[in-house]
Amino acid sequence: MTKLSKRSEAVALSPIRKLAAFADEAERKGRKVHYLNIGQPDIKAPIEAIEKLTSTEFGVLKYCPSKGLTSYRNKLPTYYKRFGISIQPEDILITIGASEAIYLSLMACADPGDEIIIPEPFYANYQGFSTMAGLHIHPINSSIKDAFALPSVTDIEAAINDRTRAIMLCNPSNPTGYVYSKKDLNALAKIVAKHDIYLIVDEVYREFIYSDQEFYSALELENVSDNVIVIDSISKRYSACGARVGSIISRNHKFLSAVLKYAQFRLSAPLFGQILAEAAIDIQGSYLTEAVEEYNRRRLHLYNRLKAMPGVTCYLPEGAFYCFVELPIDDSDRFCQWLLESFEYKGQTVMLAPGSGFYASPGLGKKEVRIAYILNTNDLEKSMDCLEHALLQYPGRTIIN
Amino acid sequence: MTKLSKRSEAVALSPIRKLAAFADEAERKGRKVHYLNIGQPDIKAPIEAIEKLTSTEFGVLKYCPSKGLTSYRNKLPTYYKRFGISIQPEDILITIGASEAIYLSLMACADPGDEIIIPEPFYANYQGFSTMAGLHIHPINSSIKDAFALPSVTDIEAAINDRTRAIMLCNPSNPTGYVYSKKDLNALAKIVAKHDIYLIVDEVYREFIYSDQEFYSALELENVSDNVIVIDSISKRYSACGARVGSIISRNHKFLSAVLKYAQFRLSAPLFGQILAEAAIDIQGSYLTEAVEEYNRRRLHLYNRLKAMPGVTCYLPEGAFYCFVELPIDDSDRFCQWLLESFEYKGQTVMLAPGSGFYASPGLGKKEVRIAYILNTNDLEKSMDCLEHALLQYPGRTIIN
Repeated sequence: MTKLSKRSEAVALSPIRKLAAFADEAERKGRKVHYLNIGQPDIKAPIEAIEKLTSTEFGVLKYCPSKGLTSYRNKLPTYYKRFGISIQPEDILITIGASEAIYLSLMACADPGDEIIIPEPFYANYQGFSTMAGLHIHPINSSIKDAFALPSVTDIEAAINDRTRAIMLCNPSNPTGYVYSKKDLNALAKIVAKHDIYLIVDEVYREFIYSDQEFYSALELENVSDNVIVIDSISKRYSACGARVGSIISRNHKFLSAVLKYAQFRLSAPLFGQILAEAAIDIQGSYLTEAVEEYNRRRLHLYNRLKAMPGVTCYLPEGAFYCFVELPIDDSDRFCQWLLESFEYKGQTVMLAPGSGFYASPGLGKKEVRIAYILNTNDLEKSMDCLEHALLQYPGRTIIN
Repeated sequence: MTKLSKRSEAVALSPIRKLAAFADEAERKGRKVHYLNIGQPDIKAPIEAIEKLTSTEFGVLKYCPSKGLTSYRNKLPTYYKRFGISIQPEDILITIGASEAIYLSLMACADPGDEIIIPEPFYANYQGFSTMAGLHIHPINSSIKDAFALPSVTDIEAAINDRTRAIMLCNPSNPTGYVYSKKDLNALAKIVAKHDIYLIVDEVYREFIYSDQEFYSALELENVSDNVIVIDSISKRYSACGARVGSIISRNHKFLSAVLKYAQFRLSAPLFGQILAEAAIDIQGSYLTEAVEEYNRRRLHLYNRLKAMPGVTCYLPEGAFYCFVELPIDDSDRFCQWLLESFEYKGQTVMLAPGSGFYASPGLGKKEVRIAYILNTNDLEKSMDCLEHALLQYPGRTIIN
């Protein structure tokens, strides 16, 4: 009998996808499943960008340069310029989604046994990529009590040791919706500069801000160009998750050269997705503002429904399109599986992402779930009807009606 | 100053891409560069498959299931059925090119410090992926004297130790064009079964066989379904390198489940490429036979030109579209860079992949280069004119004219 590697047995399943087989089974039984587990919006990608792709005359479908399609890299700075951010094509490496951007950044900045500091809860796949790269996540706990705001800077600095290579965060945050302020980022910039470590900021939700607060990119930080690595992607911005186009942006060209070595092994990011992505740079105005308005409606709708459910602790998220919610249940892994296996309301059920997978600290998140508000308000309404009824029926509920 | 990881400083540059900056510079100087360094064919992808993609009505560009688009996985067995190979959709995991298929297979079957046996010279990026995964390649030397045939099975078995997790090879071989026979594969099957290790066979060039020998897939081996992992891709078959669609095929479902964990972290392979790949399954007959005939013409042309050059050692490759050639030079790294930096013939030059990067044994391949015969015979003719003149002018030539 052949053996599997220890690492593949040790690696945790993605909480976002691990219940997929139960959802398939629920659908086979004829149930309608509302997928609030994954950040897969139901908004259409911009038609102009799709038309650009489908009207391209293709002949030879070449590998792109490993850094990314030259015309796309040359044009991408115009997108950031709209926010007053000046970057050059040389600061950009195009990746296969933000996923690859995160993984290759970790591979380039840290060795097996090194540590990455991340406020938790964090995007669950950071754990997966860290494990693949042999890295330890040193989590800094943030709390639902203050809507998962940045933990104290003193706590973060105290966590730094000889093996620490980076502080990583997602702004606005997946899974909490917290928007890190200019003040937060400046405080972190001071720390990374002092300790000569990296600040990796995943800004894939940069367009999705619902409060009056202006988004402050890590690319705007001063005097830390050697430390700052920004992760971006077209997946959420243009609702183009399947295109698989992301990027690493950094003014640290030695760092980008290290990433490029890895990128050369995989030869090329997808050609079709990059053509779409290049065309999407021209999208301005109504497409994005309408998307943000639509998510805002969903956000308020979700919040109002959750607030009215007994025993549910939630807050109004300020950005991205997730809310990290505490439910009156014994165990969210069990609850989310039960929703798919044993529950239905009017022939429907809802798929959520269990909270535990978003923490590195053992035992945390057991009562929490991540809810993505990526469905139209009509489906979201039905999803919340399901959740409300499920909380009344679930055998492991902690409020007895 | 932030540090880079030791692994990214240690990892070797891809020999196929490391001279890219010199080629760019040569083009900037107005020279025409013939790219024989990379397996990027100049043949068009099948028009029917492109039309299927460009006529699809896209709305929401969703993530695909991490295993691959369901309809594509369901249809892919019909391709193998044409060769009498029976596989099921459950035996398939769709990847982002063969590159990801190789990397994730290594991650799933071996831990840092483990060993993989590979006949050398081998596809250079096997080294890169092994280093990324923390694995050691135990090379088994094959020789240009017998056209890089499989080394003795005794030598291979003698190389197996406690840390050996797999034997990996490419059939037909990139970079040598050697086609492993049924007998070769059966001998290897016996070894992997006896030692409970994996046999990873990269069959991305499976369609490109020029002799009368029938291609024998590792999927046809009997009694080793637990051991065999086949890597495939649409890149070469349908000249669709930029689409980034590959696959892992194995009847070992525990192994595939381990790979799936990693695949779930990166969420999805590219949607557009998979739509093209699914449509391409219908391509039969003339598209493929014409491509093989075209490559055969190029193969014969290349061979005849090389044979006529004094001091060049070559052989007639039987498959894939590469030839691994010994040149009368001091150092192929230096020579390939010189071709781009300091040489031109009628305003043209040629880019080749230096041989050393295809060996794990230090010091080997210094006089060898990999030549990809992926250009039309007219361009190939000009490329060989360049090579012929270069060998007469290169300061480090070992035959003095």
